[in-house]
Amino acid sequence: MSEADFIARLRTIATDPAARGLADDAAVLGDLVLTHDMIVEGIHFLPDERPQDVAWKLVAVNLSDLAAKGAVPIGVLLGYSLTGDSEWDEAFAQGLDEVLRRYDTILLGGDTVGMPAGAPRSFGLTAIGRAPATGAPARSGMRPGDQLWVTGTIGNAGVGLAMRLGEVDANETCLAAYRRPQPLTDFGPAIAPHVHAMMDVSDGLLIDAERMAAASGCAVTLMMEAVPLSAALLAVRPDVLDTRLAAATAGDDYQLLFAADPDAAQAVRELAATAGIAVTPVGYAGVGAGITLVHSAQRIALPDRLGFTH
Amino acid sequence: MSEADFIARLRTIATDPAARGLADDAAVLGDLVLTHDMIVEGIHFLPDERPQDVAWKLVAVNLSDLAAKGAVPIGVLLGYSLTGDSEWDEAFAQGLDEVLRRYDTILLGGDTVGMPAGAPRSFGLTAIGRAPATGAPARSGMRPGDQLWVTGTIGNAGVGLAMRLGEVDANETCLAAYRRPQPLTDFGPAIAPHVHAMMDVSDGLLIDAERMAAASGCAVTLMMEAVPLSAALLAVRPDVLDTRLAAATAGDDYQLLFAADPDAAQAVRELAATAGIAVTPVGYAGVGAGITLVHSAQRIALPDRLGFTH
Repeated sequence: MSEADFIARLRTIATDPAARGLADDAAVLGDLVLTHDMIVEGIHFLPDERPQDVAWKLVAVNLSDLAAKGAVPIGVLLGYSLTGDSEWDEAFAQGLDEVLRRYDTILLGGDTVGMPAGAPRSFGLTAIGRAPATGAPARSGMRPGDQLWVTGTIGNAGVGLAMRLGEVDANETCLAAYRRPQPLTDFGPAIAPHVHAMMDVSDGLLIDAERMAAASGCAVTLMMEAVPLSAALLAVRPDVLDTRLAAATAGDDYQLLFAADPDAAQAVRELAATAGIAVTPVGYAGVGAGITLVHSAQRIALPDRLGFTH
Repeated sequence: MSEADFIARLRTIATDPAARGLADDAAVLGDLVLTHDMIVEGIHFLPDERPQDVAWKLVAVNLSDLAAKGAVPIGVLLGYSLTGDSEWDEAFAQGLDEVLRRYDTILLGGDTVGMPAGAPRSFGLTAIGRAPATGAPARSGMRPGDQLWVTGTIGNAGVGLAMRLGEVDANETCLAAYRRPQPLTDFGPAIAPHVHAMMDVSDGLLIDAERMAAASGCAVTLMMEAVPLSAALLAVRPDVLDTRLAAATAGDDYQLLFAADPDAAQAVRELAATAGIAVTPVGYAGVGAGITLVHSAQRIALPDRLGFTH
């Protein structure tokens, strides 16, 4: 059974509205937002990744899901598989402490298990946050005519992974984006009252935009020239369409993608300026279904792969 | 690093009172109780266990932690590693549906990951419950003079495991206790206002009673003749001290162990009668530290192993 098939099966069980049809970044239970993500060695992180960075990423990806629902982090529960390597475990604990302090989040509890010899390291984290008073934005609220925005820049982490694999010369900005994503735990709650729909970009801008479109029953058009790329990325990749498509399908960005009424544009820009982050309109929602890419005023074919599927 | 060492390290991070020093069955955040337990193939369940029963046990052990804090289950988040075996995944989903319906609990969300080939199946579950209005009893509230009670019978699951391993002739009661523990999600909330301390018996009556004593700064005396054994267990084991010690150190019981003022005894018995379950006073708390076992009016030596340590 594929992941998609299994989730479809779980959807027949998770019929309570709090589960949001298993089609959102997180569950919303009263004024709480809850999310659970796992990371597995060899799948989500390289075996030689620094344990401090593994801990950081495990927490950061979950806090990014909270941010996408406008939720302020409260605490986390950790599922930890002991590795039989005390230095590794200690370094993981250091990274955990560091990321929790950085995001003012507490360790509430969890479980620790010994794994059979040779099993890959695998970790789970549940993050709990407080939903905004105006409600947690869903993925499914985008309306035809909405502007589609993305925070920060896209593709740094994908290039960072390529650097880790020795495919490109390393630079610190892209490596850091891959190793230590920075969830937008302040901007997410700030912008939430102004959006119709929001999610984080974890699997790739194209696939995540398509998911938002599908959940909302809208079509989406993305302008490839508008996809914000960092100077660090452009230092190692030429600014051509292929670079933009690679950036928009690489995933691991943990930026926020949100749909808002065009009338909200000024509020969006002001809140971003206050938070000290960039926001870029990358497209718009229309009637219909599916995703359309535009480059040089031409419609272009979708790439074979819209993003990372697990 | 051992599990105990790693948890000690995490304790330096989990300093918020909500984490209860990582020394309780669950975290208590406002009126919510949260717990996370993992189960791993080859460690917590046998590779040939029925997937329906693996799902049942994963949920049941977490709901038992909620019951131990007097919490009524609300929902769960599932961390699932796809197995590459569709029949197995489908059967797991069936068991999940069954146990959630049985305990009126909703699937809120979670995560699904593909695992590298050959990795053991491993699953995590976070359960969220509503704490009783009188507060969630801690492990640490036992006072000298308290009676120590246990629900149901002890040792069935341990014998069930021995049956699964072919060491003893099978009987359905003990096998069912091993495969499908029945968390006391009604009695836990009912008894909570009447106890000084409560926890579930997951690793063995002796080790769990010792943990409660240590957390409370008390000594505990347990009367081995009083440990309640089922007719099903006594059908395959002689009623001798070794059987009682084996039962009290086997774990996987998911009964509730609680300390209450002797004046509460009548209320305890009435609530148990209402719930249709047995409760048995098995000992008492005193000043000092550690656990003392009494049999035939004699103090007896502690066994080398007080229970299951992961």
